[in-house]
Amino acid sequence: MYYNYAPNIITQRILQLSGKNLLTRNNFVLNNISKKVQLILPRTFATSIESNTEIPAKKHAPTKEVNFTLTQDDIKFFTSILPANGLIIDNEDDLMPYNIDWMRKYRGKSRLVVKPKDTQQVSQILKYCNDNKLAVVPQGGNTGLVGGGVPVFDEIIINTNNLNQIRSFDPISGVLTCDAGCILEVLDRYLAERCYMMPLDLGAKGSCHIGGNVATNAGGLRLLRYGSLHGSILGLEAILPDGTILDNLSTLRKDNTGTLGIITGVSISTPRRPRAVNVAVLGINSFQNVQKAFMTSKDELSEILSAFEFWDMNALNLLKTHNIQGTKFPLEDHYPFYVLVEISGSNKSHDDEKLHNFLENLLTNEIVTNGVVAQDDTQIARFWSLREGIPEACSKAGAVYKYDISVPVPVLYQMVKDVRIRLQSAGVLGEDKLVSDVIGYGHIGDGNLHLNIVANTYDPKVTNLIEPYVYEWTEQHNGSISAEHGLGFMKAEYLGYTKSPSMISLMKQIKQSIDPNGIMNPYKFLPTR
Amino acid sequence: MYYNYAPNIITQRILQLSGKNLLTRNNFVLNNISKKVQLILPRTFATSIESNTEIPAKKHAPTKEVNFTLTQDDIKFFTSILPANGLIIDNEDDLMPYNIDWMRKYRGKSRLVVKPKDTQQVSQILKYCNDNKLAVVPQGGNTGLVGGGVPVFDEIIINTNNLNQIRSFDPISGVLTCDAGCILEVLDRYLAERCYMMPLDLGAKGSCHIGGNVATNAGGLRLLRYGSLHGSILGLEAILPDGTILDNLSTLRKDNTGTLGIITGVSISTPRRPRAVNVAVLGINSFQNVQKAFMTSKDELSEILSAFEFWDMNALNLLKTHNIQGTKFPLEDHYPFYVLVEISGSNKSHDDEKLHNFLENLLTNEIVTNGVVAQDDTQIARFWSLREGIPEACSKAGAVYKYDISVPVPVLYQMVKDVRIRLQSAGVLGEDKLVSDVIGYGHIGDGNLHLNIVANTYDPKVTNLIEPYVYEWTEQHNGSISAEHGLGFMKAEYLGYTKSPSMISLMKQIKQSIDPNGIMNPYKFLPTR
Repeated sequence: MYYNYAPNIITQRILQLSGKNLLTRNNFVLNNISKKVQLILPRTFATSIESNTEIPAKKHAPTKEVNFTLTQDDIKFFTSILPANGLIIDNEDDLMPYNIDWMRKYRGKSRLVVKPKDTQQVSQILKYCNDNKLAVVPQGGNTGLVGGGVPVFDEIIINTNNLNQIRSFDPISGVLTCDAGCILEVLDRYLAERCYMMPLDLGAKGSCHIGGNVATNAGGLRLLRYGSLHGSILGLEAILPDGTILDNLSTLRKDNTGTLGIITGVSISTPRRPRAVNVAVLGINSFQNVQKAFMTSKDELSEILSAFEFWDMNALNLLKTHNIQGTKFPLEDHYPFYVLVEISGSNKSHDDEKLHNFLENLLTNEIVTNGVVAQDDTQIARFWSLREGIPEACSKAGAVYKYDISVPVPVLYQMVKDVRIRLQSAGVLGEDKLVSDVIGYGHIGDGNLHLNIVANTYDPKVTNLIEPYVYEWTEQHNGSISAEHGLGFMKAEYLGYTKSPSMISLMKQIKQSIDPNGIMNPYKFLPTR
Repeated sequence: MYYNYAPNIITQRILQLSGKNLLTRNNFVLNNISKKVQLILPRTFATSIESNTEIPAKKHAPTKEVNFTLTQDDIKFFTSILPANGLIIDNEDDLMPYNIDWMRKYRGKSRLVVKPKDTQQVSQILKYCNDNKLAVVPQGGNTGLVGGGVPVFDEIIINTNNLNQIRSFDPISGVLTCDAGCILEVLDRYLAERCYMMPLDLGAKGSCHIGGNVATNAGGLRLLRYGSLHGSILGLEAILPDGTILDNLSTLRKDNTGTLGIITGVSISTPRRPRAVNVAVLGINSFQNVQKAFMTSKDELSEILSAFEFWDMNALNLLKTHNIQGTKFPLEDHYPFYVLVEISGSNKSHDDEKLHNFLENLLTNEIVTNGVVAQDDTQIARFWSLREGIPEACSKAGAVYKYDISVPVPVLYQMVKDVRIRLQSAGVLGEDKLVSDVIGYGHIGDGNLHLNIVANTYDPKVTNLIEPYVYEWTEQHNGSISAEHGLGFMKAEYLGYTKSPSMISLMKQIKQSIDPNGIMNPYKFLPTR
């Protein structure tokens, strides 16, 4: 019955949720959302609508109680295949950490979390959910930034915490095979004991699951050296919505973004752990010189260059204000830009010589104003904590609008300047204003800017000033949004800025073919890159 | 009408073509082939069947004339959008190089080659073919080893020779965007002038097209250093069977193996060209020590290691017999195994010191018996030509059964020994016997063995001794067939050895969704990894 009217209602709600009217720009996407929703209307969602829940635009989550639609039979099934500690039912407090993302930006109302401990259980759960048209959301470490891993309504949360076994490691080839719920840092520690390392590193490493990393093709701090994560993935094990176990997904290793299936196992090629690592932090007077320093590092550090990160003075000020780094900062004076250069190699004296020559060259040619090299592992960790502390400092400062943009390096920082000017002109940027700061940092090597706009609260006035401005700016400069964070729930509507209609249509075609009942992570619409 | 009976006939023919009865082992694959063929019966193929062509098992190609089914309207259309030098019609001699693969193993009977020069033309051609149910085969440099790029019957050949423009190159990021028909070596030379390089290198570089490299995820000689090619691909432009242009295929960058669409443009991240390159050739007494040398190279050469190739004494003898290398060989004595180690770095004195220490270590620990380091670029080229000359030497020696196997490194060479024993026991291996030699070489770093069995001619007796033995052996040792050559036409039936039924079923589902008329490279059945 609801098939006849639900799509329009749902479309409207989704538009409300996004705080934005798509019709102004992209009819194509709107039309497709409406078609999509028609296709993927699962049982729980329909009930949410039928209970007439009000979903306010700003909070992105239902405020009234949503009727819980699981039947006694459903509960009976889940308790029959999972132990008592393998599921959480109806207990609001216990459910909360799974319903809300770590940014506290998106909140669902799921009444059931299941934590399967092996592939078979995931398959059984999905088969049951598909047969009974119960919507699900796959969830790993719940460290995502775009609401992709939390429910939108009362989808069942399939959490991979208990899929945490290392299956095998071959010390000759460096191939690691493990469950999808293994935590990135745990895997890296395991490999460190065997002189290997994970080919990616990111701020959330202490919590994020390798399955989520793979699903979103996470970038992170060492993409410059070890390349795109998908380049290192040799095979996947994944479960399709109907419960089918795919145990050799290497052919399909893209597009498993949690909307086509659930990854349960990963086989990954890992690099040798370097014997010698060092880090330098540089103070630089212009973004022009940041670029020159980067080109020089590619020339002179070449095969030992493993990270080239930058942040601006505003980021440093935030770090100081929120005391993320204690009181010790490696460079005393203030510079418009800071760069962290990491080298990793097999011969410390060779590496140090290369780093020394590199820094000499930069100073001689007045590309950098000041620089300091870490003297021991403690200092290396401290230097890194500057860069890694920036997201935390932003969160402490207020509500953060986070954008993750790929644009050609020469115009990378212009985006930050242009957003500042725009917010200043509108009178919302400054102390005691709606927006307290606009900061820029990111991975120069990948042309990847993290633009963080720190506000007192998520305010429609601010939102409307930023969006679609940021997306249009990106499009005008031949960039792409969501370089590494994915599109998830809230950015789904902006897909039209970076994907052509034909591409979106193909993605939808594949989605419908594989998930005809639309149970798999609905409302997240389309997979990211 | 033919829909009612054709599938069985076709299936039988395909089984004949493959020289092998699938029923003995894998009913699943057989069943799926028959279903598949039913789905993808395009016009030209149906006519081939109706003309009752005899297709003998050994030659893998029709011997009788196949009726050419293009109408005057078809010809009119193609001549209207392509210049005179953009198509070849009906001229047997001119068509031959496109109908036959370079191994001279597979031969089709196409009467039409089209050579579009831009994306729009490819789109127009495919749309017309799809509307008129004309089967096509995409063809790049035609350097494939498994018959994937030549027609099976009289499919229209869409050749990418004229899609050969470099579109852009960004010297800061190293991102190259080019047409799919650009030749690998041409791209590498273009990049060399700009201090960059292509992240892959393979024997066929002088002819192979980047589009074909991407479609098959070509491995090659430097995978050890620069990783899987797909890891370096940032985006694709491709045409779907119905003519739809996808201009942002990064989400779908796998699976474009020429059975889902035609790649017309590639965007690829390229690494900095190293300033210093050197090569050593080592003589080693056992495969055990080859493995030890490899582990040592990962430890000591680490970030400057760019290739680690091996070949056996039989390969060297073939090289000498067929005079591939002139008369100069770097090591005078004979050893059971040879290894080529390449280093690439940014500082020649550092690199040389590392290489020296590495070789010292190997000699001191008696891991290698002898070794020689190239003294100049001429010697580097000569050392490489040993390794790269092996396929040519094999071809000169006779008909070559080529297998491309991934297995764990410890058992890599055991395969070669076991095949020799099997052929010896059957009395077919030796001088003046059906099989003159069995040689092994390949990429240790990737656990990738090239097994070449040199015979006087492709003989069913030999084929039956080798297959499915090689596939079963691989499966028993947890390996996979077709590490880098793809499955193409002749190996399609063996897919069941490395892909699960659920995986094959999903691949077919996606194929049907995207190519419902089955015009795109039919009879190659399923995409490779």
